Amino acid sequence: MSILVVGSIALDSVETPHGKAEDSPGGSALYFSAAASLFAPVNVVGVVGEDFDFSQVDFLKRRKVDFTGLKIEKGETFRWGGRYHQNMNKRDTLYTYLNVFETFQPQIPNIYRNSKFIFLANIDPELQLHVLESIESPTLTILDTMNFWISGKRAELDKVIKQVNVIILNDDEIRELAGENNINYAAQKMLIKGPQVLVIKKGEHGAVLVTKNDYFASTAYPVQTVIDPTGAGDSFAGGFVGHLACCSQLTKENFRKAVIYGSVIASFNVESFSFLKLKEISREDVEKRLEIFRNMTCF
Amino acid sequence: MSILVVGSIALDSVETPHGKAEDSPGGSALYFSAAASLFAPVNVVGVVGEDFDFSQVDFLKRRKVDFTGLKIEKGETFRWGGRYHQNMNKRDTLYTYLNVFETFQPQIPNIYRNSKFIFLANIDPELQLHVLESIESPTLTILDTMNFWISGKRAELDKVIKQVNVIILNDDEIRELAGENNINYAAQKMLIKGPQVLVIKKGEHGAVLVTKNDYFASTAYPVQTVIDPTGAGDSFAGGFVGHLACCSQLTKENFRKAVIYGSVIASFNVESFSFLKLKEISREDVEKRLEIFRNMTCF
Repeated sequence: MSILVVGSIALDSVETPHGKAEDSPGGSALYFSAAASLFAPVNVVGVVGEDFDFSQVDFLKRRKVDFTGLKIEKGETFRWGGRYHQNMNKRDTLYTYLNVFETFQPQIPNIYRNSKFIFLANIDPELQLHVLESIESPTLTILDTMNFWISGKRAELDKVIKQVNVIILNDDEIRELAGENNINYAAQKMLIKGPQVLVIKKGEHGAVLVTKNDYFASTAYPVQTVIDPTGAGDSFAGGFVGHLACCSQLTKENFRKAVIYGSVIASFNVESFSFLKLKEISREDVEKRLEIFRNMTCF
Repeated sequence: MSILVVGSIALDSVETPHGKAEDSPGGSALYFSAAASLFAPVNVVGVVGEDFDFSQVDFLKRRKVDFTGLKIEKGETFRWGGRYHQNMNKRDTLYTYLNVFETFQPQIPNIYRNSKFIFLANIDPELQLHVLESIESPTLTILDTMNFWISGKRAELDKVIKQVNVIILNDDEIRELAGENNINYAAQKMLIKGPQVLVIKKGEHGAVLVTKNDYFASTAYPVQTVIDPTGAGDSFAGGFVGHLACCSQLTKENFRKAVIYGSVIASFNVESFSFLKLKEISREDVEKRLEIFRNMTCF
């Protein structure tokens, strides 16, 4: 079933200990699409400026990513610049130019209104609410957010949280959102607020999935050399949602496997700048790495 | 088969956000014994002062821990005092009084010389070498050490490393030992130096086992409330070695399962001050938690 993603499209300039890339395509919606399109068709709602070079996302079109919902506005595309520290776990933002993204008002094309899997990437919760209202009867709604909205637009964010099925956050974000240091208690607290599923990403340490009746803990796939961590979270979400969109039923087992697909896809993503690696791989590569992952963790 | 452990026996005064315990029995040899004795008989070589209250380790004797190799010297038992920070991942040492442990010279009783599983807890590498020379034909020798010896007695430590089969370290220690930030590369570097197996403990993030032909990654058992992390590493080693001492063959599968037993035992250990929890539980409790662990991680 097709997936709808609403999020940012950016041109990133990133510096890591392994080199740098300038004005590479990025943003949550593109990272997510590059990942999820390995599993299912993806519909993108976002905005770019007139400077955006569409030849860079031609491969996504070939993978059935639909850009009907992509607006081209006068002005420049959202730009972000960042530099990662030696250990890659920290980064400094060098600049953020919102440009056309500043006034982004997601409009859901009619042909997207019956989308079944909705990924609300990290944008203003007011806009996320608007997206939810535009969808007819989704099967699964999945939310990402960040500290900026958790502290800055909490009332609006709480309304979104009440309506979604799944929240995907990293460990620091879930702690802040729940006001609770222990991530397992934090997840339990958030489950009372509406969502049925919490996915907590712990970077190189794996991920945890918590529902009322299930607890699943997984390690991360051990990447030999992390080239650029940008987009790891969005590509994780892409693998997670992508797998679920292929499942005939949303069982406990499928949610667990979705976490593993998320980890596998994120592990590919960080092996290159931008989403060059996700562009290069096939679904077969994903399945191979999933089997390596399984062999690496079974006892 | 019986296990020999050579290490410290201490009286610890520990303060954590959950309370404090004064002059509780601790030290690497006792934490290890409390854990490993859930699996197999343990022989202890160590030293205490005249102030040591043996009634505190009566339960270990009932579990076939043999203290023939324990010397009682004139003076006081090794004392350590520490205070854990709010998040439990950091601690300050308040005092270290080596007392009778300062001049500890491990002497291996004749009846211990044919021990098959030898755990060299974190002591001076010169003493560890001496222990290795005293053992007739061990099946498996397992080494623990710490930054103090890695930087302070490197030449002696390297001699021990050359002779042992297994090294168990935490992530920071393996990085320091190998001079390599990526723990997977670090493990590969250490495998060239002699040992066949590297076990890297990552605390709340699990553990990794690396051999020439195997790579196994595991999460940690999610403890609801960590009361006191002291002895987590030694009790992990106790579960790890304990399981292997029960195996008829040292297969890849048994080494992997040993890591899980280590994690399970460590998870019990941190649920109380000193080794009160390890005293209370039975082998059946261990098996139950192992099954929960398995269910929690399968996909």
